[in-house]
Amino acid sequence: MERERIRELLERVRDGGVEPDEAIEVLAQLPFVDVPGARVDTHRALRTGLPEVVYAPGKTPEQIAEIVSALRRSGQPVLATRVSAKCAESVAERIGGGEYDAEARLLWFGPAEVALVGKGTIAVVCAGTSDLPVASEAVGVARRFGNKVDFLVDVGVAGLHRLLASSEVIRAARVIIVVAGMEGALPSVVGGLVDKPVIAVPTSVGYGAAFGGVAALLGMLTSCASNVSVVNIDNGFGAAYVATLINRL
Amino acid sequence: MERERIRELLERVRDGGVEPDEAIEVLAQLPFVDVPGARVDTHRALRTGLPEVVYAPGKTPEQIAEIVSALRRSGQPVLATRVSAKCAESVAERIGGGEYDAEARLLWFGPAEVALVGKGTIAVVCAGTSDLPVASEAVGVARRFGNKVDFLVDVGVAGLHRLLASSEVIRAARVIIVVAGMEGALPSVVGGLVDKPVIAVPTSVGYGAAFGGVAALLGMLTSCASNVSVVNIDNGFGAAYVATLINRL
Amino acid sequence: MERERIRELLERVRDGGVEPDEAIEVLAQLPFVDVPGARVDTHRALRTGLPEVVYAPGKTPEQIAEIVSALRRSGQPVLATRVSAKCAESVAERIGGGEYDAEARLLWFGPAEVALVGKGTIAVVCAGTSDLPVASEAVGVARRFGNKVDFLVDVGVAGLHRLLASSEVIRAARVIIVVAGMEGALPSVVGGLVDKPVIAVPTSVGYGAAFGGVAALLGMLTSCASNVSVVNIDNGFGAAYVATLINRL
Amino acid sequence: MERERIRELLERVRDGGVEPDEAIEVLAQLPFVDVPGARVDTHRALRTGLPEVVYAPGKTPEQIAEIVSALRRSGQPVLATRVSAKCAESVAERIGGGEYDAEARLLWFGPAEVALVGKGTIAVVCAGTSDLPVASEAVGVARRFGNKVDFLVDVGVAGLHRLLASSEVIRAARVIIVVAGMEGALPSVVGGLVDKPVIAVPTSVGYGAAFGGVAALLGMLTSCASNVSVVNIDNGFGAAYVATLINRL
Amino acid sequence: MERERIRELLERVRDGGVEPDEAIEVLAQLPFVDVPGARVDTHRALRTGLPEVVYAPGKTPEQIAEIVSALRRSGQPVLATRVSAKCAESVAERIGGGEYDAEARLLWFGPAEVALVGKGTIAVVCAGTSDLPVASEAVGVARRFGNKVDFLVDVGVAGLHRLLASSEVIRAARVIIVVAGMEGALPSVVGGLVDKPVIAVPTSVGYGAAFGGVAALLGMLTSCASNVSVVNIDNGFGAAYVATLINRL
Amino acid sequence: MERERIRELLERVRDGGVEPDEAIEVLAQLPFVDVPGARVDTHRALRTGLPEVVYAPGKTPEQIAEIVSALRRSGQPVLATRVSAKCAESVAERIGGGEYDAEARLLWFGPAEVALVGKGTIAVVCAGTSDLPVASEAVGVARRFGNKVDFLVDVGVAGLHRLLASSEVIRAARVIIVVAGMEGALPSVVGGLVDKPVIAVPTSVGYGAAFGGVAALLGMLTSCASNVSVVNIDNGFGAAYVATLINRL
Amino acid sequence: MERERIRELLERVRDGGVEPDEAIEVLAQLPFVDVPGARVDTHRALRTGLPEVVYAPGKTPEQIAEIVSALRRSGQPVLATRVSAKCAESVAERIGGGEYDAEARLLWFGPAEVALVGKGTIAVVCAGTSDLPVASEAVGVARRFGNKVDFLVDVGVAGLHRLLASSEVIRAARVIIVVAGMEGALPSVVGGLVDKPVIAVPTSVGYGAAFGGVAALLGMLTSCASNVSVVNIDNGFGAAYVATLINRL
Amino acid sequence: MERERIRELLERVRDGGVEPDEAIEVLAQLPFVDVPGARVDTHRALRTGLPEVVYAPGKTPEQIAEIVSALRRSGQPVLATRVSAKCAESVAERIGGGEYDAEARLLWFGPAEVALVGKGTIAVVCAGTSDLPVASEAVGVARRFGNKVDFLVDVGVAGLHRLLASSEVIRAARVIIVVAGMEGALPSVVGGLVDKPVIAVPTSVGYGAAFGGVAALLGMLTSCASNVSVVNIDNGFGAAYVATLINRL
Repeated sequence: MERERIRELLERVRDGGVEPDEAIEVLAQLPFVDVPGARVDTHRALRTGLPEVVYAPGKTPEQIAEIVSALRRSGQPVLATRVSAKCAESVAERIGGGEYDAEARLLWFGPAEVALVGKGTIAVVCAGTSDLPVASEAVGVARRFGNKVDFLVDVGVAGLHRLLASSEVIRAARVIIVVAGMEGALPSVVGGLVDKPVIAVPTSVGYGAAFGGVAALLGMLTSCASNVSVVNIDNGFGAAYVATLINRL
Repeated sequence: MERERIRELLERVRDGGVEPDEAIEVLAQLPFVDVPGARVDTHRALRTGLPEVVYAPGKTPEQIAEIVSALRRSGQPVLATRVSAKCAESVAERIGGGEYDAEARLLWFGPAEVALVGKGTIAVVCAGTSDLPVASEAVGVARRFGNKVDFLVDVGVAGLHRLLASSEVIRAARVIIVVAGMEGALPSVVGGLVDKPVIAVPTSVGYGAAFGGVAALLGMLTSCASNVSVVNIDNGFGAAYVATLINRL
Repeated sequence: MERERIRELLERVRDGGVEPDEAIEVLAQLPFVDVPGARVDTHRALRTGLPEVVYAPGKTPEQIAEIVSALRRSGQPVLATRVSAKCAESVAERIGGGEYDAEARLLWFGPAEVALVGKGTIAVVCAGTSDLPVASEAVGVARRFGNKVDFLVDVGVAGLHRLLASSEVIRAARVIIVVAGMEGALPSVVGGLVDKPVIAVPTSVGYGAAFGGVAALLGMLTSCASNVSVVNIDNGFGAAYVATLINRL
Repeated sequence: MERERIRELLERVRDGGVEPDEAIEVLAQLPFVDVPGARVDTHRALRTGLPEVVYAPGKTPEQIAEIVSALRRSGQPVLATRVSAKCAESVAERIGGGEYDAEARLLWFGPAEVALVGKGTIAVVCAGTSDLPVASEAVGVARRFGNKVDFLVDVGVAGLHRLLASSEVIRAARVIIVVAGMEGALPSVVGGLVDKPVIAVPTSVGYGAAFGGVAALLGMLTSCASNVSVVNIDNGFGAAYVATLINRL
Repeated sequence: MERERIRELLERVRDGGVEPDEAIEVLAQLPFVDVPGARVDTHRALRTGLPEVVYAPGKTPEQIAEIVSALRRSGQPVLATRVSAKCAESVAERIGGGEYDAEARLLWFGPAEVALVGKGTIAVVCAGTSDLPVASEAVGVARRFGNKVDFLVDVGVAGLHRLLASSEVIRAARVIIVVAGMEGALPSVVGGLVDKPVIAVPTSVGYGAAFGGVAALLGMLTSCASNVSVVNIDNGFGAAYVATLINRL
Repeated sequence: MERERIRELLERVRDGGVEPDEAIEVLAQLPFVDVPGARVDTHRALRTGLPEVVYAPGKTPEQIAEIVSALRRSGQPVLATRVSAKCAESVAERIGGGEYDAEARLLWFGPAEVALVGKGTIAVVCAGTSDLPVASEAVGVARRFGNKVDFLVDVGVAGLHRLLASSEVIRAARVIIVVAGMEGALPSVVGGLVDKPVIAVPTSVGYGAAFGGVAALLGMLTSCASNVSVVNIDNGFGAAYVATLINRL
Repeated sequence: MERERIRELLERVRDGGVEPDEAIEVLAQLPFVDVPGARVDTHRALRTGLPEVVYAPGKTPEQIAEIVSALRRSGQPVLATRVSAKCAESVAERIGGGEYDAEARLLWFGPAEVALVGKGTIAVVCAGTSDLPVASEAVGVARRFGNKVDFLVDVGVAGLHRLLASSEVIRAARVIIVVAGMEGALPSVVGGLVDKPVIAVPTSVGYGAAFGGVAALLGMLTSCASNVSVVNIDNGFGAAYVATLINRL
Repeated sequence: MERERIRELLERVRDGGVEPDEAIEVLAQLPFVDVPGARVDTHRALRTGLPEVVYAPGKTPEQIAEIVSALRRSGQPVLATRVSAKCAESVAERIGGGEYDAEARLLWFGPAEVALVGKGTIAVVCAGTSDLPVASEAVGVARRFGNKVDFLVDVGVAGLHRLLASSEVIRAARVIIVVAGMEGALPSVVGGLVDKPVIAVPTSVGYGAAFGGVAALLGMLTSCASNVSVVNIDNGFGAAYVATLINRL
């Protein structure tokens, strides 16, 4: 599409409707809007068909509200991630209308029901109760991005029967997200059960030699299952983003 | 399919054709063959439609030859990875018939031309000349696994024009593998250019603070592009495996 | 200059105006003033033409006020860095007259407008909104040190068009400071666009495998762009200091 | 027993058979023999009922031969670990009579058949072919220490059916040693299958983020299975030693 | 036992009492109960004869109360670990009846006196006063799991006489747990005194180069005493669990 | 002395005044007193001529008070280290009579003036204002242990003239303690100025790549000055302890 | 200049001399030449006025010869870095004409004397004899890049008098490169002597806690001298590159 | 002494015997001699009374021979450390006359017997046979530096009786060097036995979690014995140097 816009511009240059110097300016004018402290990309949603996403940490409620408003003005749905309850409240006071999921720390501005665009199901498999916030983020993001999601909880590798009892659900998915802390062994086991891409999310759950998710991260990167790729520690959002792109193929 | 086999078995139990104790044995009899020092999974290729893969390091040429033979007897193609030239030669002397790619360190036993099964193209983007062995492994594996592959070399981020000149190729792919050492910034830039899944492969190329690939690995895991997932350092094989599964969806 | 002072001293020794033992004492008497808990260097500003700088963390407001006062008495401007709002207030109550920049955490005692001494422009390029405190420190310090500064915000590598749209500003600078967290890839890309020295500042922005700025730090140290040198994580001050010295050449 | 010896000594002091100063000397005279560069403990085997063990790395064949001879003279069997083929040969030339296991790198001086002392079976479970040297060391040591050993190979977590097919063997053991490299997930899965102590041995097998066994080590230390304890990377000997002590209880 | 249940099921299939499809469902129905956010394993205590254990961190008092209630309804004792005083209070308000040990952070629902099942004594040896919370957890868990426990405190290696004075107690135990922070040398010394399995627990006690327990952890893993195996930093529970299994052999 | 006591004991055994079994008990009765949660060594001060020291962190004010009381009852001075202001107050309420140094976090129970025992002067050299708490601990401990101390502050390596101006003080000392954070270069420079033992104390002062004192620690361990040995990060106490022992030689 | 080329192109589009589709192709045609395995940037030297640089490790002599030839054909001087003696010989056999500096591992194709372009002197200060290869690389590159260089060797911080004796040379430079291994303290001391930018190069010289240059790297990043910026471990080339750019300002 | 020289110089300036400009030159003329690639300090031995020391790694035999010759010409003894057998031979061929200790890797040019200068004995305590090279370096250096040395070998903490049997030797020393690898616990135990300074030397002996001496290093830095200070991994020379300075006090 951009190629089209450039062709059109060059044709207008050829036809004399646009001066070369003007054209240089236009070539430099790219699709974003400056708000204080941020350069908001208003066209990404058009390009990708995905809602715009705002990563909340390190931003004040004022900044978040301003960015969300700029994006909402251009008609797009917006999803803010890692939003604390207090911040969500403070944003809501400013611009209203959002929907907050406390466990997943997601703040959503858009339709209550998102049309399904993904072609199959995304399975989100969560090792333990303590991994729930990260897994919930993955589930919430995947749903807001137009995917059908199956969610399995508390199926860690030390109690295989709990996992195997749900193996049909896992095998039925088009892409699987596996969320685990501690030793992070679950993606290896799940990866061995299916022939679909597995996206592993290490969590910072654990203590001591878990080193805030490093043990799980290393375990997933060195998985003996070949169908596993990995995202950052606690990055439920990233896993859902990648899974969404795969599920649209 | 296994579910079918179990159903069939249980029906035979019901019909008296099989005793319960026999059935227990059959339930335990799973599809593998024991050779000395390895339990070879002869059914995986049937299940996945992918060739069986043997990871060479830590195995003697004898062991590799034995495993390959066991697998070839069951009629499957076999791909050995990380095979040194010397080891490849030694295996060839024992069982013959393989095809060796020295740069990619791949040893292939199967048809010269593999039928295309992947639905689109996989682009493999390689940052620098020194990353070629890893990128070649990804290219070679992806081709042997039935994918059309586009291969771009020496398009690092410090010379953006070289990358941008090839952006059409990247945008045309269904899934992109990006191979980079040193600071590992290329997946972030490529990830920003496309709306397809990007699989990042850090390489051990670099010195000093590159720490054998750790700098690149961390850079890729913390990429500001959301469509990036990561495999282990130098794991061109794993990236191609994941990309293949995605490309078959 | 010190060489001159020593020559003068020795000439006075030769002329009998100063006894050898006295001269030894004078040779040892160097240009600083002792306040409780600190040995304040009152001549550095004279030597360098730069304001004296006080690093606030680990110092009480009392100590900061005392050091600032000692320096102010010798007629110099003083800049305190990493000053929390609460500390700034407490210092102000004691000695008054300062100017506080909350985002940059800078507390300034000196003229409101500093004369330009730098020969060209310093560009400060900031990857994301969350990196603003560090980038603002660099901007504030560079301005107080007598430089013209251009400031670009939110131009991360995953949205190259935002960066390229401002490339003229970057190319016009005499020295460029690049501030980025997460994977820290921005200095590599900026370094590829210009043939000027680039000073990279990793920030502690990010989570998980960002390891408090380590991922960005390693990425910048292993940058494939040769014109990049690096300062400590979050060290906006140091980058501005080095850039100032370069801009005065 | 030592208590007995001290009592006896003190009784002799009381009876005047030993002078106090002599007694002090005897109290200090403890059961070892000095050979050049080593203080050989000749009584340990008597105390523990286990053969004496010599750790070969960093010792010359001369030193090993000397230590072995000193121990053999006191009538004990001796087991040398981590002995390279070349070193074994060189030791054999000096003192003869040993039995060498190349895969396990064990050199044994003692009876060909060791009487069973352990009360049950030790199961040694080995994840992959590349882990065999470490697992073989554990098997060899456990057998030389008088245990019945069951040995399972190539039963990694990404192919659970291979492991589950052998679960009866695992459940029948009194204590289980699990040897795994890469992500080191196998002890968690095995730990979930049994209610016996599991001793996990991380191996240095793997590359990249395996970091020479660190990934496996951290994974095992943070295992979600509570019955797992861990020994050093590649320490098959230590695992067998602990398992032996447990199996004698 | 499960094998028995499967046999029985298969016999009923043979006899026509159960349809194959039903049997498949039953085979998948494994012994757990779903409560919101957790899949509670109600049969583990039956299988192992040990109380069920709930790891409190990351769980709300509501979740803990719910899980405890589910387990209590099936008649089992329950032990919650790492329970803060505040959380314990909050759980008690909801379901009552528990017994709280503040130093060990254990919350117990079960009989005040647990019958001794372990065959011998477990000695818990604690290096310093600051290691008491971890050691107390080990002591408390071991007692609730039916073991006789001897507890030694403040017997660090820099004052050997304090340790040696208690060596009879240590030698009398069937298995020894050693809890130490800082350099973690105590297990090596204790390991040299006995011929029993020693389970080492590094603690996060210490500062600077102790790195939150890493120094102790590495020291224990590289212990020159061969009878030492290691659990995670601060994992008093895990050590007691392993010791219990050993003490029941 | 202990040797004397043992001889005496053995002579009494010989003379029949003590039964062997009694003697065994006595040999085991070593010089400490049990208070709840600690085994207090009441004879150390007698043996070493140094006050007993209590490390406060991880101990409650109650525990500290109890230990101090036990020691005071045996007539010794006691020094508690790392005592927070709040804890000092709470201890004082319980047992009174102590002297608290807030900057050094030392709480002292003993004579206001300690007799000089050290043969020369200990110089404590402190790099920056932020390192003062650690340096003050070293100064305070060295003085309470009977040493004359010279204290130099704010003489970091980036302003060599400040250090060189005081070099006579440094050269006059019998042993030098150097306290520095950040890059920890000061011990190398001081080490090059003197031919006396230098004890380096890295501090946790600094940010980013200082990694809580690791940069300084590594710098000191790899110092190109051969007369430098190192203690733990922030361990002003340990440095003073070692310096005291040296100064008594 | 590129802006000029684009303007010219657009003017030709306006004048009808170039079709829009042609223009798109030209816009994409960027200044590089593809040789097997590399995309050689032939215009960089024109843009920057610096010779093209080839990093040798990971490239075969054939690849290096091919790249050098491609660049030489476009008339540019070429500098290859990190070239082993053996590789240099092999390249010379293929294309001849180069000049090899064995200590600096530089291979140069260009005029024997390079015209001075830098405005002042670059001082290269080398801590110890073992750091010479890295320092020589910096010296060689800076000279080939048209700078006057002063070179000081063996002036480590533990013998300050050797450094101070040369302080005039250091003060006379426009920019200073400091090369040091072990604790890497030299840049802090040099930085305190001058008010010019200091570029610090940590080297991998040292053992044990030097960790291959990490101690020096961390020390330099946390330097208490504000005028220090840092490049990668052993990166003499990068330091010379940055210094060259500064020296041309 | 230098102060004296300066006084003398200044008096000559006063008396007109020396011009001020000349005096400046003299003040700058410091006591070293330049040989190619090194600035040799010929006065250090005079100042310290210790032989000059040359650290061999990274220096060619030519360089070592040249430095040794320069020093020998000024009449001093020279000690080269970390000299491989091959290098020692090559140096000997060039300049002859040295004495080589292969285990300690020391090459000595000086009198066969060095007069005792140290006031007491230095005890060197070595944990295991594999630590011998490092311990021997400490012993050899200490003897060449004029100390009486007692050497204890193979007295690790897992066999306390061997250590305790030699405790009289340890208690008789004026300063103790303890050399240990693996968990590095020996200095803590030795530190608890004596009231003398203990210098701990971690060695790179061990595997896996020993991490090339890191485990031992951390253990020694966090020792619970307060009289322990630490030098770099494998730095037997440094320990002997510090011990020598202490032993001369």
